[in-house]
Amino acid sequence: MTATTDHADFVGDLSPDEFERHAATLARWIAEYLQHPERHRVLSGLAPGEFRASLPAAMPEKAESFDAILADLDRVVMPGVTHWNHPGFFAYFANTASVPGILGELVIAALNQVGILWRTSPALAELEQTTLAWLRDASGFPSDWFGMITDTASVSTLQALAAAREADPSLEVRHRGLAGRPELPRLRVYCSSQAHSSIDKAAITLGLGAENVVRLPVDGAFRMRVDALEAAVAADRAAGYRPLAVVATVGTTSSTAVDPVDAIADVCARETMWLHVDSAYAGVLALVPEHRVHFRGVERADSFVVNPHKWLFTPMDCSVLWTRHPQVLKRTFSLTPAYLETQEQDVALSFSDYSFQLGRRFRALKLWWVLRAFGRDGLVARLRQHCAYATRLAVEIAATAEWEVMAPVGMSVVCFRHRPAGMTEAAVLERHNAAILDRVNASGQVFLSHTKLGPDYVLRMAIGNLRTEWRHVAEAWRLLQGAARTSAAS
Amino acid sequence: MTATTDHADFVGDLSPDEFERHAATLARWIAEYLQHPERHRVLSGLAPGEFRASLPAAMPEKAESFDAILADLDRVVMPGVTHWNHPGFFAYFANTASVPGILGELVIAALNQVGILWRTSPALAELEQTTLAWLRDASGFPSDWFGMITDTASVSTLQALAAAREADPSLEVRHRGLAGRPELPRLRVYCSSQAHSSIDKAAITLGLGAENVVRLPVDGAFRMRVDALEAAVAADRAAGYRPLAVVATVGTTSSTAVDPVDAIADVCARETMWLHVDSAYAGVLALVPEHRVHFRGVERADSFVVNPHKWLFTPMDCSVLWTRHPQVLKRTFSLTPAYLETQEQDVALSFSDYSFQLGRRFRALKLWWVLRAFGRDGLVARLRQHCAYATRLAVEIAATAEWEVMAPVGMSVVCFRHRPAGMTEAAVLERHNAAILDRVNASGQVFLSHTKLGPDYVLRMAIGNLRTEWRHVAEAWRLLQGAARTSAAS
Repeated sequence: MTATTDHADFVGDLSPDEFERHAATLARWIAEYLQHPERHRVLSGLAPGEFRASLPAAMPEKAESFDAILADLDRVVMPGVTHWNHPGFFAYFANTASVPGILGELVIAALNQVGILWRTSPALAELEQTTLAWLRDASGFPSDWFGMITDTASVSTLQALAAAREADPSLEVRHRGLAGRPELPRLRVYCSSQAHSSIDKAAITLGLGAENVVRLPVDGAFRMRVDALEAAVAADRAAGYRPLAVVATVGTTSSTAVDPVDAIADVCARETMWLHVDSAYAGVLALVPEHRVHFRGVERADSFVVNPHKWLFTPMDCSVLWTRHPQVLKRTFSLTPAYLETQEQDVALSFSDYSFQLGRRFRALKLWWVLRAFGRDGLVARLRQHCAYATRLAVEIAATAEWEVMAPVGMSVVCFRHRPAGMTEAAVLERHNAAILDRVNASGQVFLSHTKLGPDYVLRMAIGNLRTEWRHVAEAWRLLQGAARTSAAS
Repeated sequence: MTATTDHADFVGDLSPDEFERHAATLARWIAEYLQHPERHRVLSGLAPGEFRASLPAAMPEKAESFDAILADLDRVVMPGVTHWNHPGFFAYFANTASVPGILGELVIAALNQVGILWRTSPALAELEQTTLAWLRDASGFPSDWFGMITDTASVSTLQALAAAREADPSLEVRHRGLAGRPELPRLRVYCSSQAHSSIDKAAITLGLGAENVVRLPVDGAFRMRVDALEAAVAADRAAGYRPLAVVATVGTTSSTAVDPVDAIADVCARETMWLHVDSAYAGVLALVPEHRVHFRGVERADSFVVNPHKWLFTPMDCSVLWTRHPQVLKRTFSLTPAYLETQEQDVALSFSDYSFQLGRRFRALKLWWVLRAFGRDGLVARLRQHCAYATRLAVEIAATAEWEVMAPVGMSVVCFRHRPAGMTEAAVLERHNAAILDRVNASGQVFLSHTKLGPDYVLRMAIGNLRTEWRHVAEAWRLLQGAARTSAAS
């Protein structure tokens, strides 16, 4: 080998012509997939370990042909895929790889921007600001909110609570940390019993400790009880603890409940606590005028998270963190070593100043394409339709003997269960409904998940895939009723 | 609108046929781009704010045509792109969007897997395990290392230090946190003066505090001094602090120095400290037999990070965290709410149990394709070639009057500076070399960055793009010499 060997002498990286040929093959394959997602089982039918067993034990020494690699898509990969793109996907929060989003990811990969500093990709830094300003303004959020994209709501909430920890400079958390400081009190974070586990994980990561996440009781509609918040804060103050932050949820994971943000904001203002709003799923509904009511008071939040990769038809991953206090976020995380200093650093925004992650993908591009390809009206029409499906399903369930809707339906999720006459014990009802769930999921035609609402095990139908039509919802409901009959008979 | 309106009535999401047509347009565009990256300036020529000024102030209300969106790629996006794909990209650590990697991202986007639990994508969970086992074994790392993919080395290191904080269960960090616990000592992390800023950010995030990152002096080759480590640990013990972890670097950011991991591991064993090895850039060199020497002792590490998105031709983002202690990582982060419980949870691995992030992309697929398309031999050949280029350049620099190589060249990075006869003052040398850097970067033909090595400002040439040939390195060297002459004359 001479040092001047041309790149073309090497195997492995394909030529641009080969790229084009294989891209065409894949485009055909993907188009076929998007046309007929229903050909696949929603939930993979593999057992744990089966997928691994189908793979060689070691990396190949020699380059493999790309045709062989592509052939493994159908042979090896697809049996292990759970089809989030299937219109019968109703588990967790349904999502979508829309066509504009998929094409956006193709360009993101090809340009391979690494957003460390402004200069490492001005397009990334500035498109992220503009795209998020578009989304913020169209959502009716305050015009002074600063936005940034992260990978997941877990990271958005972690960063928000890191900022909350830093909001009072006299605590000196960044420089001195939390350990070995006898003068520091316990730092407390409040959320409802329905709040997401990412809050606990953030508290663990930040060194606040899981036991300092205070989970408050909810009312009959699964909303945080503000009297309980006030009492908990007062008790903590009396115990010498420091109330640091409240995480209110607009659209809880289990039942899409909406905490009373306005009243919580009053408490936060009075007690000097950071108010973070977790609206990872529901935040996109702020685009829909008649749903703005869910967001009353969020303009007073210190930070807010919404995930376009959930219900805004953007492929994984894309979470958005907004904050009124970018300077606090910057004070928390900005740290510029000598090798990253630039002439423009005082005038050009680098997102690494606001994050514990140094590099970032060009995620803004796919979101920009989704917003433009759908337009606000297109997005609103679909969000409305999903909510209408949920309402219609809830009405049908409520009108059916021995079925009950278990939580108010304000968005696109329905919580419900089957309760045969005479079946009253919680454990028995749980076994019965879990059996129904397993049966419908085993059909391969739909995939639903469950949750607990208080002591009650309930089934959840989360509508949110772009390709879901009413007939898919109706089919799921038909399967559920059939499974209930079979299960009750067995 | 009726609730049964068919999806096809909506604008915005394109049909599979339209997907195929636009994908073909994009494939042509990308092939052209990959064929001729040199047509573009490496570093974007835009000034801060110019990109944003080219965009509308608000989201469109109506869907835009996808042809118009695609037209903006050339008109709007490209002027703001800094071309990491350009063979003249020598800044930071050069990387590559290889063809197998780009095509992998296309499929990742289309399948849109969300790796929360094993069942949400068995293919994701198991392919990630297998692909990382391939990479681990081909690298000669211990066969009991557990691997997981994260987005960035910042997150890998953050998770490693979170595990370090949890390694001693008696500290009860997860449950009780660090604040308000007078019995807890300060927790200390050690690294060299050359270590990456992500360690400081991780310490800030974890509540350890920036001041508890102890940066140790280095020897003449920029390697951590073990005697200084021992002295710092002893001093901290005497002060009542708790030595928690050491972060050793194999391939530092500034000069690719290699800390004496074996000797550091001895200290860690004696002092019961967690040993994390940051090899974000260099870790892939473990694939190359004659470079294994850099990794002596890493088999004793508790955790290890390498980024395939740097020097393994994988598009952003893809970092790998390995650990010998998956149970500690799991103890740190596992938390399963009711709605995520599954029948298979005791036998099937869910990566969310090992991470503060709940969801994850199907990143393993692109890495799998890269490993297969290149094969081990293909990867090794390229890594060797980049190192050979760096060695050849260093020889030429060292042989040229008034130029000097400023650090040993053991990998693919050369640190150097121009020192005209009689120019001795550090500040003057810095201004002179910074002027050279600005001049060559302004050419648009190459992009280099700088660093500080002790008091010395040095230029850095980091070779690592798949499409870089010797002629690009030679051209950069020619431009540097020209700029030095111009700069010295002005």
